[in-house]
Amino acid sequence: MIGALEATGNPASIHGAGRLARRVLEEARGQVAIAVGAASGDVVFCSGGTEANATAIAALAPGRRVLVGATEHDAVRAAVPADAVVLPVLQDGTLDLAALESGLAGGGPALVCVMLANNETGVVHPMREVAALCRAHGALLHVDAVQGAGRMKIDMGSLGAATLALSGHKLGGPKGAGALVLAAGMHLPALIAGGGQERGRRGGTPALPAIAGFGAAMAAVGDAGRLAGLRDRLEAAAVGLGAVVCGSGPRLGNTSCLALAGVRAETQVISLDLAGVAVSAGSACSSGKVTESRVLAAMGLGELAGCAIRVSLPWNACEADIDGFIAAYSVMTARLRTKGVPGGPGGAASLHPAFSS
Amino acid sequence: MIGALEATGNPASIHGAGRLARRVLEEARGQVAIAVGAASGDVVFCSGGTEANATAIAALAPGRRVLVGATEHDAVRAAVPADAVVLPVLQDGTLDLAALESGLAGGGPALVCVMLANNETGVVHPMREVAALCRAHGALLHVDAVQGAGRMKIDMGSLGAATLALSGHKLGGPKGAGALVLAAGMHLPALIAGGGQERGRRGGTPALPAIAGFGAAMAAVGDAGRLAGLRDRLEAAAVGLGAVVCGSGPRLGNTSCLALAGVRAETQVISLDLAGVAVSAGSACSSGKVTESRVLAAMGLGELAGCAIRVSLPWNACEADIDGFIAAYSVMTARLRTKGVPGGPGGAASLHPAFSS
Repeated sequence: MIGALEATGNPASIHGAGRLARRVLEEARGQVAIAVGAASGDVVFCSGGTEANATAIAALAPGRRVLVGATEHDAVRAAVPADAVVLPVLQDGTLDLAALESGLAGGGPALVCVMLANNETGVVHPMREVAALCRAHGALLHVDAVQGAGRMKIDMGSLGAATLALSGHKLGGPKGAGALVLAAGMHLPALIAGGGQERGRRGGTPALPAIAGFGAAMAAVGDAGRLAGLRDRLEAAAVGLGAVVCGSGPRLGNTSCLALAGVRAETQVISLDLAGVAVSAGSACSSGKVTESRVLAAMGLGELAGCAIRVSLPWNACEADIDGFIAAYSVMTARLRTKGVPGGPGGAASLHPAFSS
Repeated sequence: MIGALEATGNPASIHGAGRLARRVLEEARGQVAIAVGAASGDVVFCSGGTEANATAIAALAPGRRVLVGATEHDAVRAAVPADAVVLPVLQDGTLDLAALESGLAGGGPALVCVMLANNETGVVHPMREVAALCRAHGALLHVDAVQGAGRMKIDMGSLGAATLALSGHKLGGPKGAGALVLAAGMHLPALIAGGGQERGRRGGTPALPAIAGFGAAMAAVGDAGRLAGLRDRLEAAAVGLGAVVCGSGPRLGNTSCLALAGVRAETQVISLDLAGVAVSAGSACSSGKVTESRVLAAMGLGELAGCAIRVSLPWNACEADIDGFIAAYSVMTARLRTKGVPGGPGGAASLHPAFSS
């Protein structure tokens, strides 16, 4: 990234400084393409996951019925038309495939928006089945892979998606870069047209330093199994202290959604923050306003939806980070027990069949 | 920026890491606001000038007739509706105010898009008169200030614009950040909605490192007069070698458009590049495709529109840079003279009344 900061040329310029900047851009494009099994020419850089989702939906939704998962990120929910059909999820957090099938059976061209993995629970949707249903009904599939990328294998060649959204800062890159990846042969109009950069699919001078960091992060994606081991230890300790883990479907190795019955999520976030542990209540993107998690409510968790925190292990998390979390979580639950707030060991886990550790 | 890279929190998060990131964001917002005489709350960060222009026009154009200057940047031209009225410029490159007035007299709500200064010639439009005409006819004014910012004083309080577009990398900041500045009390819908960041006016996690650099660059804007002095020396030398300066209207201190009759712009760009001088033919943003400059054609320069290069002095240009340019330009014109190509001293300057040095 430091090198990219020094590449002050405009990658669209034909002079030497421009060509150097273009090399930085195209190297990053190749890194992203390889990481998701796409051709370089099908990677469209933009400012992040939100723009990537907005671009795909703005291009593909007109003239199509839109079906969108109930637990999609706000970046997707805010981009789909107001009359989009919201597809429910099962109690385990995965998409209700029967609802998708009956929704698609309505006929006519359709766009289906289903995320690869959920940002609050880490639950991974049954993408193979989703794609097969879309294919069978001639529907286009847009996949928000912002949370899943870098934590599970992605292959555009076999995924069955028309478009795929990625974000650099979710996998160790800097904020300010993302990509929309297109299926081979797919073309779509720009949401931001400008000077015709990115082969006319996204105008504006590319955010070179952030893009370079995004590419490097994609190329450096580590061992997802290592994070899953850390996550398992964290969750076992939290459950022993009274937490329940939300989302019993298949999950990413780095994301835990921990509910503590009767304790407001905001209280937990502040308590853990005082101990130096940064967690979110629901989606960080909307957590300035702490409200009940729409995702957990869609999973049928009722009041518990306001009592869950989201713990994300970054790519460089280590054993000491897990120790630190467990110590902070332990202090928090002990203090809450003293105050007579529910949430002690064994308190709520059996009440909600949707939870698993 | 390095500090901002290390602020890995999400500015929307309420924990300590989030609050630190928010401080970085709000410090930059204050720097931009002060530099353009706006309130912090009226600065909406986005990915750059192209997005800022696209956001303003997408929000304000519906339901209004759109009038757009003939020499506007592609970021604006690509964003306005296909039926927008194109306002001609005078031979000196400034907007034809009589055309604006008669266009506005057509009646009905209107949006006028006029740039503060042109990116190819540096010509500064008569913004006071433009704003007065818009006010008199109840039209909204959007100003693309991407080229002018940092090179001339901007005061949102007196400019008369509803919206103003800025780009960080045009004034020494990194690529990947810009802002849309709103008039006091103005609100507009987001082009990219997402999680409601930037008070609902631009979704997506802000590009913190680039935004920090943008703010710092705005706060560090230097002495425009110093650049104008360097520019004058550069232009005088180029004119002595046969160049004509395009755009006799008031101009920015850092931008020169130098035409050499009979010599294709691309030939000049490549020749100067070999000598280590990076110039563009027309707008860098579209210069991958070297075509005749639409801006110069609109100024009535005819065939000369394909024979002009754009020389931009960056914020840190120094006397040695001017020496380097003059040496390279001198070698180039001498070689062209040897080959019998027009462009020698005195060759074309008198043919085009629109030129001035």
